[in-house]
Amino acid sequence: MNQTVFSVGILEKGARNNIADVPGIRVGHYTLDTETHKTGVTVVMPPVENPFLEKMTAACHVINGFGKTLGLVQVEELGTLETPIALTNTLNVGRIHDAMVEYMLDICKRDGVDLVSVNPVIAECNDSFLNDVSHRDLGIVELYAAIENACEDFEEGDVGAGKGMTCHSLKGGIGSASRIIELDGEKYTVGVLVLTNYGKLSDLRLPDMENFGRDLAEQLRSDAPDKGSCIMILATDLPVESRQLLRIIRRCSVGMARLGSYIGHGSGEVVIGFSTADPVRQQEKSGIVSKRVLNEKMIDLPFRAAAEATEEAVLCSMLEAHTVKGFRGERKALREYL
Amino acid sequence: MNQTVFSVGILEKGARNNIADVPGIRVGHYTLDTETHKTGVTVVMPPVENPFLEKMTAACHVINGFGKTLGLVQVEELGTLETPIALTNTLNVGRIHDAMVEYMLDICKRDGVDLVSVNPVIAECNDSFLNDVSHRDLGIVELYAAIENACEDFEEGDVGAGKGMTCHSLKGGIGSASRIIELDGEKYTVGVLVLTNYGKLSDLRLPDMENFGRDLAEQLRSDAPDKGSCIMILATDLPVESRQLLRIIRRCSVGMARLGSYIGHGSGEVVIGFSTADPVRQQEKSGIVSKRVLNEKMIDLPFRAAAEATEEAVLCSMLEAHTVKGFRGERKALREYL
Amino acid sequence: MNQTVFSVGILEKGARNNIADVPGIRVGHYTLDTETHKTGVTVVMPPVENPFLEKMTAACHVINGFGKTLGLVQVEELGTLETPIALTNTLNVGRIHDAMVEYMLDICKRDGVDLVSVNPVIAECNDSFLNDVSHRDLGIVELYAAIENACEDFEEGDVGAGKGMTCHSLKGGIGSASRIIELDGEKYTVGVLVLTNYGKLSDLRLPDMENFGRDLAEQLRSDAPDKGSCIMILATDLPVESRQLLRIIRRCSVGMARLGSYIGHGSGEVVIGFSTADPVRQQEKSGIVSKRVLNEKMIDLPFRAAAEATEEAVLCSMLEAHTVKGFRGERKALREYL
Amino acid sequence: MNQTVFSVGILEKGARNNIADVPGIRVGHYTLDTETHKTGVTVVMPPVENPFLEKMTAACHVINGFGKTLGLVQVEELGTLETPIALTNTLNVGRIHDAMVEYMLDICKRDGVDLVSVNPVIAECNDSFLNDVSHRDLGIVELYAAIENACEDFEEGDVGAGKGMTCHSLKGGIGSASRIIELDGEKYTVGVLVLTNYGKLSDLRLPDMENFGRDLAEQLRSDAPDKGSCIMILATDLPVESRQLLRIIRRCSVGMARLGSYIGHGSGEVVIGFSTADPVRQQEKSGIVSKRVLNEKMIDLPFRAAAEATEEAVLCSMLEAHTVKGFRGERKALREYL
Repeated sequence: MNQTVFSVGILEKGARNNIADVPGIRVGHYTLDTETHKTGVTVVMPPVENPFLEKMTAACHVINGFGKTLGLVQVEELGTLETPIALTNTLNVGRIHDAMVEYMLDICKRDGVDLVSVNPVIAECNDSFLNDVSHRDLGIVELYAAIENACEDFEEGDVGAGKGMTCHSLKGGIGSASRIIELDGEKYTVGVLVLTNYGKLSDLRLPDMENFGRDLAEQLRSDAPDKGSCIMILATDLPVESRQLLRIIRRCSVGMARLGSYIGHGSGEVVIGFSTADPVRQQEKSGIVSKRVLNEKMIDLPFRAAAEATEEAVLCSMLEAHTVKGFRGERKALREYL
Repeated sequence: MNQTVFSVGILEKGARNNIADVPGIRVGHYTLDTETHKTGVTVVMPPVENPFLEKMTAACHVINGFGKTLGLVQVEELGTLETPIALTNTLNVGRIHDAMVEYMLDICKRDGVDLVSVNPVIAECNDSFLNDVSHRDLGIVELYAAIENACEDFEEGDVGAGKGMTCHSLKGGIGSASRIIELDGEKYTVGVLVLTNYGKLSDLRLPDMENFGRDLAEQLRSDAPDKGSCIMILATDLPVESRQLLRIIRRCSVGMARLGSYIGHGSGEVVIGFSTADPVRQQEKSGIVSKRVLNEKMIDLPFRAAAEATEEAVLCSMLEAHTVKGFRGERKALREYL
Repeated sequence: MNQTVFSVGILEKGARNNIADVPGIRVGHYTLDTETHKTGVTVVMPPVENPFLEKMTAACHVINGFGKTLGLVQVEELGTLETPIALTNTLNVGRIHDAMVEYMLDICKRDGVDLVSVNPVIAECNDSFLNDVSHRDLGIVELYAAIENACEDFEEGDVGAGKGMTCHSLKGGIGSASRIIELDGEKYTVGVLVLTNYGKLSDLRLPDMENFGRDLAEQLRSDAPDKGSCIMILATDLPVESRQLLRIIRRCSVGMARLGSYIGHGSGEVVIGFSTADPVRQQEKSGIVSKRVLNEKMIDLPFRAAAEATEEAVLCSMLEAHTVKGFRGERKALREYL
Repeated sequence: MNQTVFSVGILEKGARNNIADVPGIRVGHYTLDTETHKTGVTVVMPPVENPFLEKMTAACHVINGFGKTLGLVQVEELGTLETPIALTNTLNVGRIHDAMVEYMLDICKRDGVDLVSVNPVIAECNDSFLNDVSHRDLGIVELYAAIENACEDFEEGDVGAGKGMTCHSLKGGIGSASRIIELDGEKYTVGVLVLTNYGKLSDLRLPDMENFGRDLAEQLRSDAPDKGSCIMILATDLPVESRQLLRIIRRCSVGMARLGSYIGHGSGEVVIGFSTADPVRQQEKSGIVSKRVLNEKMIDLPFRAAAEATEEAVLCSMLEAHTVKGFRGERKALREYL
């Protein structure tokens, strides 16, 4: 979002204050909004025509592994991402995985590559309160629609995979923010996109309103246990090794802690990061390649950017969301209480 | 298999010398055998009616993560397995994941449980030489068929998920073996089932025939690079913590190394282990529960059993397989060269 | 400390509000306070006569590994702690490691055990601003003195290993806090002891004073970069597996994030946890033993306790400290600015 | 050693067939050989004047963590090595850690650097059968002597840290081997140095003599349980990222498995790897630096080299050793049975 009512951190924000401030990144949503279904797919598109042929340097970090994210084994081993990242609901990850295989087969065929193996990265939160999660209606058509819709000025809040999500018992969903850092006179961007679906109402802290959640829970006389999940995607154009990127994305949890989470048992919290600098070319023939990497002594800058952008992205996911009535009840928008 | 022509290790074997020697474990195959398709699904069924309600203590270990196994994040965090394990081909894992969600919804509905979240564990190897992997034809029907077929005296070799697999440039597939260990006068079983699809021909070592692969590659004037993968499932009725089980399954790689593998880059090698002792009950109400665990000082016994059973299971996967002609050519059975 | 001026969290505190609320735990300090040296040793003593013979279930978690803690390899593998834990300065860890070997040889000799291998756990922060760290004066005598001094009502602030530490550019050191949780009608304690030596002044947040550090840094016109480290020791009498304990101690970072840390590059942040319930007996002869473990569904309680107790322990480390002048300058106590 | 009686693998060997084939690497021993003491220190010296100022890209891998190696936390986080690596006996690691601090303070003072923090890497095996391990006599003098002795044509077998070690109930100790690989017409070296102190006699396999250990154990009517440890140091001049190096050193376990180990519970097995290419300069001022890295698709070559060199290095540790009588008895040299 362009403006939040809250101030988070000290670093400069990107022009859009979203993950698409990282040059070339686009985000697309498909939203399924019916009487029984409040759910969808959100994709984060890397800035290359075919990420199988130009793989992003990547890393992943599991903060709390009570979750069903698919595709992390290979990211961890090879330090690369070779597909767009898709977000959806918990029980639909298999179908979206298959849809992403289809998409990758398609674009590889277009590019003259006989694809026989590919590693989709599909993350999820559980929207079973607002959505009838047992009927899995998101597949190839819906993923393609989300990809088709990808743009830089994407919506946040109750859209795409965020349609049915709940955060601190209020309406959560998709949020995004970015930070600018400067090294050797060059500017680099750290962008974060989150899918929020976690937290206990009484634990919610807002900047300069530390007891916001506690007071609201008292007022509403309601305070459900912490369940759900939070997925964080961090993208940057900073040249980094996978190991450095892992260190950077480990700071995303700071943003959540600031807003009141203590990382609940039932909340599958996963961060996936990628850098758009110097992609790994599938067709590379040289035995030794040259790569730019961050001087590790400067890494506090992207650390801070990751923490700030995550905190703001989570805030945005709630601030941008509208009240939604769905399968098992209603989730009120945070804005109704501000 | 009941008898191998080779002797592996020193421990006693189980009655069937397969993973179903662990009481209650059953294995089922569905094989797709057409002109273009040599592939399938294999399931390992835990010995409970509903593994979501009675979760197995579990652990997973990624030896080389160039693979697409789904569901490991939660196994690692919670140390439990809540579905059968399914094996299939690389590009079909999403569809089998979704099929397993369907199966779990079904049996939970049968058992009066409103399932909104479940973590299928689906592993894979790449059978794209013998199988047209881009057409993903395995789904709900095929998974249910494999589950239906589950039994204790299951076939090995080129069946189920093993139909199209290649090991050391020969025909690989499904193999299984077991070992018996004794503690305090009680007997426990360690069983291993593998899906083999890795290795360079010239690297193959057989017991007491160390240069078998080197000689055969020379004779055949053929030696393709190491690609593919190897999935290992270890089951036991030994009461262990997840951490202990992780230690046990880390010894499975020894079996592969003995047969000549140096764990190639392209080979996604993953071990998933579970214990059938003292399942974690979903409905447990007590805050503190009592659990039997192995005295760690005795752990060398299951270590050795894991190494021996894996080595023999890999051997069996080749010894039991027949020559198969498929999509891009033919893989000869090892037995043709013995 | 018995009372802080700040309120942290919602759980009940233990009687002393320190780690010694966990029955049997004691903490001892040796402080070296000379013109050039402001340093020391702090020990956390488990509640058994000889921890080599009755090992504590343990776990460790590296939040940021730019640190020199010794002994974690074995804790991670075996899930046990077999010595007291000692804290000291960065360059002195080797000598304190050797001193702990001596101590363990001594008590094992006393107990008729011929000790030939033992794994001391020694953690550290870098007190090189207030202390001449290159002269390593802490050894066997000083460790024995700290052990001799161990008690339940130990001091906090600028004592023991905390004598020379700096936190958010103010005086840091030793802090401790505890929380009580109830399960099945039984009370259990989660206690945390920290050694704080990290953070940037302008980042410091205090409960209900979010901009405290920012304002103070402006007022003092000083804001050094984040360096140093933070060591956290969590003890509990809750019966848990090592894997569960690892999950619990991973929540300690939440406490630091709440007070303003984004986990700086230069800050080696390590958590070591142990449970005093059901020690692993070195002389155990049975192959299978019975163990009480926490029902994982109840784990949110100790999660919250870990986050709260850590936040308060860090606060206490600063609130209890006095202004100290040392080797390269002075660190003011937080209390001078409240 | 220049020649072994056994042939291991297919890759070309380096000129010396030891780790010093990696240009600039040197190895030094100090041996303590008295009636009660058979022990020592061995150092692996990186090819730079001051490794704190020019850090080696590094990685570490714990195969079995029942061991006391010091310094791995920072290597894992930062992917660099900033001191020589020292090997010694289990209870002496603290004193050698402190001695390495002294050495680093010395050379940094020489180079005009005020050192206040450094991370020595000290590995160990337990020589308590041949050595009175409780009297820890190795310190600053002995470490300096080992460093002074460092050369390219170092001895193997029962020297330095290897003096008192036992391998498969025979005499073990220090062994080393190397392999040459070619990429883009350039030659690179992978060298391995091991300290062997593990294994059961009856499990020992020799190349083309698979049942050597079984037969010998029968003949000698003796077969003690697997205890001890194995430390592996891998060095290379191949330009690699830390993540790639981690993948390479994970293949070292293959070498041990080939010789009969199933990675026993009591055997602390740790691999530490470093690359001498493109050191990380402590004084680097640029925010972004350029680095050469291996094209991951070529990584099978160093994988194979790691497996082969480790297998041969372990063999050499036994083949080069002499029979040693010590504190609690005698260990016969392998050569006496060949």
